[in-house]
Amino acid sequence: MSDRVERPRVGHIQFLNCLPIYWGLMRSGALLDVDLRKDTPDRLNAALVAGDLDIGPISLVEYLRHADELLLLPGLAVGSDGPVLSVNLVTSRPLAELDGRPVALGSTSRTGVLLAQMLLADKYGAEPEYFRCPPDLTQMMMEADAGVLIGDPALRAMHETPRDLTVIDLGQAWREWTSLPMVFAVWAVRKDFAAAHPGVVKEVHEAFQRSRDLCLDELDTVAEAAARWEPFDALTLANYFRALDFSLGRRQVEGLREFARRAAARGAAPALPPDGPVFAQV
Amino acid sequence: MSDRVERPRVGHIQFLNCLPIYWGLMRSGALLDVDLRKDTPDRLNAALVAGDLDIGPISLVEYLRHADELLLLPGLAVGSDGPVLSVNLVTSRPLAELDGRPVALGSTSRTGVLLAQMLLADKYGAEPEYFRCPPDLTQMMMEADAGVLIGDPALRAMHETPRDLTVIDLGQAWREWTSLPMVFAVWAVRKDFAAAHPGVVKEVHEAFQRSRDLCLDELDTVAEAAARWEPFDALTLANYFRALDFSLGRRQVEGLREFARRAAARGAAPALPPDGPVFAQV
Repeated sequence: MSDRVERPRVGHIQFLNCLPIYWGLMRSGALLDVDLRKDTPDRLNAALVAGDLDIGPISLVEYLRHADELLLLPGLAVGSDGPVLSVNLVTSRPLAELDGRPVALGSTSRTGVLLAQMLLADKYGAEPEYFRCPPDLTQMMMEADAGVLIGDPALRAMHETPRDLTVIDLGQAWREWTSLPMVFAVWAVRKDFAAAHPGVVKEVHEAFQRSRDLCLDELDTVAEAAARWEPFDALTLANYFRALDFSLGRRQVEGLREFARRAAARGAAPALPPDGPVFAQV
Repeated sequence: MSDRVERPRVGHIQFLNCLPIYWGLMRSGALLDVDLRKDTPDRLNAALVAGDLDIGPISLVEYLRHADELLLLPGLAVGSDGPVLSVNLVTSRPLAELDGRPVALGSTSRTGVLLAQMLLADKYGAEPEYFRCPPDLTQMMMEADAGVLIGDPALRAMHETPRDLTVIDLGQAWREWTSLPMVFAVWAVRKDFAAAHPGVVKEVHEAFQRSRDLCLDELDTVAEAAARWEPFDALTLANYFRALDFSLGRRQVEGLREFARRAAARGAAPALPPDGPVFAQV
């Protein structure tokens, strides 16, 4: 890493879904080699696109919207091959009956809300009246018939669903719909940074891969350590961490492409190039 | 720690002098148990006093000014028993000749600047015209005959002293003057937080002690890891870390009391109570 004195500015999602990755970065000592900026996914998306971060996780749809400026880090993602537990459509009516009804889109979600919109339109023929809303279930359901919620509030909703509400796990819904894994977020590096500092990108990528592998070996320990402070017990957390898929293999890339195709068809993002997504050389 | 769900808000000095402590917190896994807020010493001082932090390092003089709201964590400090390398008075004239001359006080320093003022007044009979200034040596010396600089810029000044300037190590100067170790910063907890959450305070204190001990065992490794990114080589960093005294034993407390006595005599801080400083029960 002799090509740069400053530590790379690397994003980290301050949600439980990325806690295992943080655990790995901490235990492996890699935290000393990055200037880690913890924040919510939407703010990290904006920071990476604005060039305030060099490398970081980014919502899949935001990656698709800025694919010309970014390269993906191979092998890394946040997704699920079935239930994800923390990307949920909470509804008070059957989905087909949401047509024309108010549906709240949690302001912290990008890919999850688009997935919900695709699912409602293409599978249930429903075009609700969507509006943005802070990610609070009670507030959402006061004004809407359904709401899309991600992250820790969504996980809580999954475990403490109020009566008369149904929780649709959007990872599971995608799997049933397409037979493919869902990729909610990827790790990307800015093209300009990758061109200037290829060695740093390679090292950060290796550090994240190592962290991911290390935390997968220690998931029960991570869950126990986290349960001391989080509003979930260790077993719930361990089940959650095991539901998450941090890999980006052949099938996950297929799922990513399928999502990209449908997003482009809706006009929600430009189409991926035929050979996309483009990965960083690491 | 069942008495509180939220992680304690703990300060961390984002300077090289506290990097070994961070290393220990990282390697021991304790980072998962605290909401660590990294910042400059002056901003951490303000945050602890304002109640925006529960526990954290604080400049000795700021502790003295707010001792009625704070309890010290036993055994922990940042100081030196001789040269500290990173709290410096840089001067273009002999110290006794600074009387009536402009002297710049680096805006990031609290205890260091007071120590310099004591030393100049009481040992050299000099009462300069002091003014606050950003911690940049070049800017300081354009407007002043001497300047007080702490932290990484001070460490750089020590290693790359411009011609015609003399660097006085204020840790060493204090040692020669009083035969005592100098304590520049202590760790404190807010009294209200300690009363409400004694278990958390005990655990954070243990985590810091463990981190300190762990990093002392691995100082060369810490120095090598840090040298990749910092403008100092591993040997310089290891020497710096070894110059620092992270303990707060009997002699260090004597040094602290002596400083408090002199600060009170100057009217720079209230006097410590006869049995002070008051420690947290851990």
